[in-house]
Amino acid sequence: MAKIAPISGFPEWLPAGRIIEQQVIDLLRQTFELHGFSGIETRAVEPVERLLSKGETSQEIYLLRRLQDEAGTDSQLGLHFDLTVPLSRYVLENAGHLDFPFRRYQIQKVWRGERPQDGRFREFLQADVDVVGQDSLAFHHEIELPLVMIEALAKLPIPRVRIQASNRKVAQGFYEAIGIEAVDETLRIMDKLDKVGPRVVVQMLAEGVGATADQAELALKLAEITGADAQVADRVRALGYHSELLDEGLQELVDLVEGANELIPGSLIADLSIARGLDYYTGSVYESTLEGHEDLGSVCSGGRYDSLVSDGKKTYPGVGLSIGVSRILARVIGGDLVVPSRKVPTTVLVSVSDESDRMRAQKTARALRARGISAEVSANSAKFGKQIRYADRRGIPYVWFSMDAGEQVKDIRSGEQVIADPDTWMPPAADLKPELLSGKGAND
Amino acid sequence: MAKIAPISGFPEWLPAGRIIEQQVIDLLRQTFELHGFSGIETRAVEPVERLLSKGETSQEIYLLRRLQDEAGTDSQLGLHFDLTVPLSRYVLENAGHLDFPFRRYQIQKVWRGERPQDGRFREFLQADVDVVGQDSLAFHHEIELPLVMIEALAKLPIPRVRIQASNRKVAQGFYEAIGIEAVDETLRIMDKLDKVGPRVVVQMLAEGVGATADQAELALKLAEITGADAQVADRVRALGYHSELLDEGLQELVDLVEGANELIPGSLIADLSIARGLDYYTGSVYESTLEGHEDLGSVCSGGRYDSLVSDGKKTYPGVGLSIGVSRILARVIGGDLVVPSRKVPTTVLVSVSDESDRMRAQKTARALRARGISAEVSANSAKFGKQIRYADRRGIPYVWFSMDAGEQVKDIRSGEQVIADPDTWMPPAADLKPELLSGKGAND
Repeated sequence: MAKIAPISGFPEWLPAGRIIEQQVIDLLRQTFELHGFSGIETRAVEPVERLLSKGETSQEIYLLRRLQDEAGTDSQLGLHFDLTVPLSRYVLENAGHLDFPFRRYQIQKVWRGERPQDGRFREFLQADVDVVGQDSLAFHHEIELPLVMIEALAKLPIPRVRIQASNRKVAQGFYEAIGIEAVDETLRIMDKLDKVGPRVVVQMLAEGVGATADQAELALKLAEITGADAQVADRVRALGYHSELLDEGLQELVDLVEGANELIPGSLIADLSIARGLDYYTGSVYESTLEGHEDLGSVCSGGRYDSLVSDGKKTYPGVGLSIGVSRILARVIGGDLVVPSRKVPTTVLVSVSDESDRMRAQKTARALRARGISAEVSANSAKFGKQIRYADRRGIPYVWFSMDAGEQVKDIRSGEQVIADPDTWMPPAADLKPELLSGKGAND
Repeated sequence: MAKIAPISGFPEWLPAGRIIEQQVIDLLRQTFELHGFSGIETRAVEPVERLLSKGETSQEIYLLRRLQDEAGTDSQLGLHFDLTVPLSRYVLENAGHLDFPFRRYQIQKVWRGERPQDGRFREFLQADVDVVGQDSLAFHHEIELPLVMIEALAKLPIPRVRIQASNRKVAQGFYEAIGIEAVDETLRIMDKLDKVGPRVVVQMLAEGVGATADQAELALKLAEITGADAQVADRVRALGYHSELLDEGLQELVDLVEGANELIPGSLIADLSIARGLDYYTGSVYESTLEGHEDLGSVCSGGRYDSLVSDGKKTYPGVGLSIGVSRILARVIGGDLVVPSRKVPTTVLVSVSDESDRMRAQKTARALRARGISAEVSANSAKFGKQIRYADRRGIPYVWFSMDAGEQVKDIRSGEQVIADPDTWMPPAADLKPELLSGKGAND
């Protein structure tokens, strides 16, 4: 038998960490459902040719093979590496049963065969929202979707998240106007600006798309522009280039930053360095930063796509964003930013004076649970002091005693002990479930 | 691109079905947490030699291979086929950080490379509860755990589930007393009794473990015994064989049926035909039937295991049961036994009179959501009749109108329309979330 050891890139949490993860998932669900998004789950696998059709992802895929299928007779299946490819397929497969625009959220594990370095995982949790239309999708959804994410992230016990946005039409319109034709490749290079710096980008632009020094300099100037209102468009126009597509993109970008900030002030800024390497984006694109944890990279990204989903007859344009839940949680849990008030769901430990008393204790616990109070019966009938320590180790706040004199409950934090009836006693609301508190890492 | 088609054995639900699945998961979680079980999630993969160590499962495993790892340099990983093997590994890996007895629940997908026939899936959802001790685990947990499942299943919108129990010590003690030594193999054969019938079992016992006609007849007589009280032990003893192990097992079985039925009357019967083919069970074993859907087979099974989990120094005996959630849901959703009251989470559609009115509608929706009312803003500003039909198609019960005369909300089921303030209006509680109702299939 192999030595027991964690597998690099496949994170797991202890029960206390899972309490945090579960509450984060619940909060995300709550926000998404308040906005009228339907939850779906898709199977973990897709045909490999569908996974490969998105480009540039081939090295990341895990293929499946049945142990006994030596001949390889199964058609090739792979684990999904994001939730966008499965959504596309789900929409095409079920179009006749869905109402459009289809508003869906999806919180699921995805798998990538990457080298597990730089905090990159091979198995991780994503939370996606998308709106998908049939044949058309109004622009206002490009304002709506990042705001849903801003609201969802603001409810989580994490540092503030800011969204930066750009627009693919601005980039494409501008690059074409200055004479660069290989727009997709230029975007992939510009996407690396943060990592490699301007000097390397100039070189890559020269080698990759044949950009002159002037063209490269203009591309870098565009990438420097940021803003939260209409002036961002003025700054682009001041570079002196124009095209219909550029104008259309600038109008959308201004509508986005103005609309978003009117509804949630300070939620979103335009940042023309946002390129998003994936070539299926056609309108707004979004990235984000976690305040104080900018080194994590974007924790919530996405954009508008017009032609990702098509069955040849109809197209299904969409816009959506994806939160890297595991990436955020690894920092929040690993860095002790947040801790649960206790590591078990139990509110009351019902003590057992001797084994003949166990049935009575079970009935007491049953009465408590019937009114929504989490209760477990002591696993043993050791001395009460030992049973109290059992509760204390787990953070269980109350211990119940059934004595001939009557039933009593003790708050083991304060030591206060009162006579109580399992059919009526109720703890303060804050004790009903583990709460999330600031951890030691929160003040670093 | 491959034709879009479902992949056999990998079930997916439409949004309405997912509402049912999600509520079932929430109800299970709620019950498990009321009983003080901690939720965990384990990674989807385990080293293949760990997956194989449980025996008899080799043909069911999906192995993983990275697309670009032609050389196969990665150590072999496979998808977990149940949640018991991952639990064993998790307990050994984290023993120093866990408190024992460790009470955990786990609701996760598992994968098996079986031929997808007979309603068997290749990807499906399981919900497990286990209690794991360190070096010892009291018998009373063998009464507790099936009752947790009985309670959890009783809260689901499904037909009644009954649990049948036996005890491995009874079977082993009896087989040994009648002179059959190959106990594990005998159990595997007896486990097939339901499917192949007594005549074939007699033949298999003769061929597989060399049982005489008398021995086979006694084994079949044992399997006929059922009962919900101490008489079940008398019936076994009346067959005329005795051993210490048999007596111990009978005492446990009687304690189980009597204890369980005292706490929840009618919850559990002893049924000595329950064999459970897996050879790691050492005490109580459980199976179950869904009333009216006995053809599904057991929907909740498990047992006591003493030596599944060990690091060579310490052992971690446990007892647990697993609910086949997908197996139940395939029947409940596929058979239209249950339907949600609507197929989206949305309670209110906020209409938009023209696009210049969209910001006002967004603010109305935001006010509603702030008080927990799911609201979406109409995707278009078509005629009100069209927007009402949009809501109607999805089952959204209310449409909100912002008019110069003031704001109004219409219950589109009754047609009643009233003046309303988005900061105070509240729908009846039943309209806040989709509810589960009996479907057309429920009366068949």
